[in-house]
Amino acid sequence: MGKLKVLFHLNEPEKWQGTFSSIINFVKDVGQENADIEVVANGAAVSAFSEKCRIAGGSGETSTSCGKATGELYEEMNKLAQMGIRFVACRNALRMHSLDENMLPPFITVVPAGITEIAKKQAEGYAYIKT
Amino acid sequence: MGKLKVLFHLNEPEKWQGTFSSIINFVKDVGQENADIEVVANGAAVSAFSEKCRIAGGSGETSTSCGKATGELYEEMNKLAQMGIRFVACRNALRMHSLDENMLPPFITVVPAGITEIAKKQAEGYAYIKT
Amino acid sequence: MGKLKVLFHLNEPEKWQGTFSSIINFVKDVGQENADIEVVANGAAVSAFSEKCRIAGGSGETSTSCGKATGELYEEMNKLAQMGIRFVACRNALRMHSLDENMLPPFITVVPAGITEIAKKQAEGYAYIKT
Repeated sequence: MGKLKVLFHLNEPEKWQGTFSSIINFVKDVGQENADIEVVANGAAVSAFSEKCRIAGGSGETSTSCGKATGELYEEMNKLAQMGIRFVACRNALRMHSLDENMLPPFITVVPAGITEIAKKQAEGYAYIKT
Repeated sequence: MGKLKVLFHLNEPEKWQGTFSSIINFVKDVGQENADIEVVANGAAVSAFSEKCRIAGGSGETSTSCGKATGELYEEMNKLAQMGIRFVACRNALRMHSLDENMLPPFITVVPAGITEIAKKQAEGYAYIKT
Repeated sequence: MGKLKVLFHLNEPEKWQGTFSSIINFVKDVGQENADIEVVANGAAVSAFSEKCRIAGGSGETSTSCGKATGELYEEMNKLAQMGIRFVACRNALRMHSLDENMLPPFITVVPAGITEIAKKQAEGYAYIKT
């Protein structure tokens, strides 16, 4: 059997934690070597990447507008990225939220349009999961 | 490469604007000639079609129960329909919200059940995107 | 034509009623003999299975934390299960909500990870619908 290919789509900042839990549980279940996982964030989900949120996260505070403090979010994302999980952000969404893509950590790939990425991955056989 | 086939599914009235943005960004990215797009609305998403919302939209007011003023919503939908994007509404959802399907603009196709339409389109190779 | 295979995914307790409506409308539209339906609940959607909710449901009360009273929820689920619709719950989600899987009614199948189930079903040709 080939790897189980899964694309997670989130467009709300509150959904990051649930997405991480889903990924961790999935990887535990099938084994890291059998999972091929990509996470695409568009819409308001990218607002969690703002520096304000990152600072709030760093100081241990949380901000309601961030969904989850970004310092912590980046840490968890970084751990998952080390395991081979790919994180993709939509450039349109970053612009809409006035976010500079050069400020994003290196493990986040920016694509011109999140929807194109999601459509292409499904055409390549990835299962789609909306969190 | 054939067209990228994408089906957008929304069941909440607040999601219309985000759906439009996603469609516009997607079309800009791949080119209108490479995109085959259908939007299926069921559940409370069809409440945005109510005449009350349409009137509110027409007069420039917005109504919280409409998600987005329908006058404006129809204008944006009409523009996208002119570009070849198909809009589909679920008859069960229209009935549930006491909406007369004969009052809908001609660019909206009504189907007996939104879920059937979504299932068939995925079987035809459409990528599914929940907004 | 073979059966239309559809997988419903829900991760919020408020979505049960809408999911049931979607299933009933779909089955009415295509005919029970042409529908192959599975429902996968993970995340907070499983909180509707708690005993507290079940008791509240049984006594006719509703609890906001349950989304829908569980007594009633189980009744509707049971009816659908009799029609051949499969209900699947994620073990991780049950644990997260301190729910004993042995307390669940027999028509609910528990899987180690809901995401694995959803990915496998899509690989088997099931259409995915997020409610």
